[in-house]
Amino acid sequence: MQMSDYIETINKKLDEYIQIQYPEDIFKAMKYTVLLPGKRLRPVMCLETCRMLGGNIEDAIPTACAIEMLHAQTLIHDDLPCMDNDDYRRGKPTNHKVFGEANAVLAGDALLTFAPQIIVKNASNNITPEKLIRILCEYFHAAGAYGVIAGQVVDIESENKTPENPEKTLEYIHTHKTADLFKLSLRTGAIIADATDEQLEELTQFGQNLGVAFQIADDILDETSTFEQMGKTIGKDKISGKLTYVSLYGIEKSKEELNNLLDKCECILAKHNLKSEVFDKIINKIRLK
Amino acid sequence: MQMSDYIETINKKLDEYIQIQYPEDIFKAMKYTVLLPGKRLRPVMCLETCRMLGGNIEDAIPTACAIEMLHAQTLIHDDLPCMDNDDYRRGKPTNHKVFGEANAVLAGDALLTFAPQIIVKNASNNITPEKLIRILCEYFHAAGAYGVIAGQVVDIESENKTPENPEKTLEYIHTHKTADLFKLSLRTGAIIADATDEQLEELTQFGQNLGVAFQIADDILDETSTFEQMGKTIGKDKISGKLTYVSLYGIEKSKEELNNLLDKCECILAKHNLKSEVFDKIINKIRLK
Repeated sequence: MQMSDYIETINKKLDEYIQIQYPEDIFKAMKYTVLLPGKRLRPVMCLETCRMLGGNIEDAIPTACAIEMLHAQTLIHDDLPCMDNDDYRRGKPTNHKVFGEANAVLAGDALLTFAPQIIVKNASNNITPEKLIRILCEYFHAAGAYGVIAGQVVDIESENKTPENPEKTLEYIHTHKTADLFKLSLRTGAIIADATDEQLEELTQFGQNLGVAFQIADDILDETSTFEQMGKTIGKDKISGKLTYVSLYGIEKSKEELNNLLDKCECILAKHNLKSEVFDKIINKIRLK
Repeated sequence: MQMSDYIETINKKLDEYIQIQYPEDIFKAMKYTVLLPGKRLRPVMCLETCRMLGGNIEDAIPTACAIEMLHAQTLIHDDLPCMDNDDYRRGKPTNHKVFGEANAVLAGDALLTFAPQIIVKNASNNITPEKLIRILCEYFHAAGAYGVIAGQVVDIESENKTPENPEKTLEYIHTHKTADLFKLSLRTGAIIADATDEQLEELTQFGQNLGVAFQIADDILDETSTFEQMGKTIGKDKISGKLTYVSLYGIEKSKEELNNLLDKCECILAKHNLKSEVFDKIINKIRLK
């Protein structure tokens, strides 16, 4: 499957999974951010990992969509006035700007349990109850206080005071805020395809490297690109004194580390003889020229 | 087991399940509201339902605690400035007053996936994977946009504009905001004890009646009691023009309906020959003199 085919499948399913019903405001708010135009990177990685390891893509679709819903949840809450206070996301007004703060909080809350519900409700016959529980555990871990939330908490803390060890803190933030959802995508795709423990471990490392690389690229672009290119307010990190790769290491060293991490990703694929045009594309897109 | 034994067991387990670790702020914020002194009504009902139907209480403890965590989650987010904007809860400052708004949002988010994680991680050998998934589905349904969140959304909407059918709207709010967690407690306790379909259905009705009765009592107390008795700001519903049983039907008719619902609860227990001092106590406590 090509990248565009994946994206089409995912968008169709996301639209289908979130049916607008009473009370409409909450379902509309959930659907609004989930369906904002985006690269669908995380669900694509989940499906492609499954395919790459010989699994059936169909079996991974509910999980892939659930991960995109979880991602949207983090965006909705991160954009809130009490957090990053952002007005735009993917070029459109943020959730609370359209539906109000209360509904934005509740839409995020709703997505957190709607997503695993989708995984269970739409599980194919190939997914045994044991495997289903394993997938749910991966989801809970990445979504919660050990995962993305840990990253967001430390991110907020480090804005208010300079941490003792900024390098370590930044790595922690990037690992949890960004790489944890990448790892979730790869790990669940791999679990669905019955990966070996070794494959699972190496793909986790792949997700870690790719996630951090993605975040470094985002930090660089936040300084060098425009609103039109990014679809969100630009330069905010610098103004708010946020800890970023660029503020800590400068642009040149950041680019170096970015390329270094992406090289490691390519090595992992090569070592396991895993061929993937889709992952090649993703890596090349993140690799800044 | 006596009510006080249940409460002691639940408090001990809640304290044990939430270990403070890095990043400490988020775990402290989660633990703060979960461990505020309370009646632990929902987890007690889960354990007692399991016992009453011949199940093993130990098997229900993780689920009972998860329901209390979910309840705490709803309190944290409902108290936020963008929602009910409450400063006190159970006689103590609300979560955002202690930890700040951002951490309160994140602590609520974290609890939403921490709770089902507790159910899975601590599942006893008596809980088959199939049963575990059934319990998780009950949790997802009650926690999400079909459950408590639906109630909260309609509650907020009805504050801003008078609904076309206030009686029906109020019933909807009470059913979802309050009764859904009561039903969750009873249903999961029953499922763990291998209840028959008929028992499960009748206990769902029991939970519905008891939940609405509980909310009517709360509406009445909001008008007639003090801060010291309730541990939260009193009379706010009236000031904010909130739709309540008392505002809609008056105190006398509210008391009548309250007693009517509790009578129905007693009938269900009697019909199935279910003896429970704990439920008798709960019913008598809600029944206002």
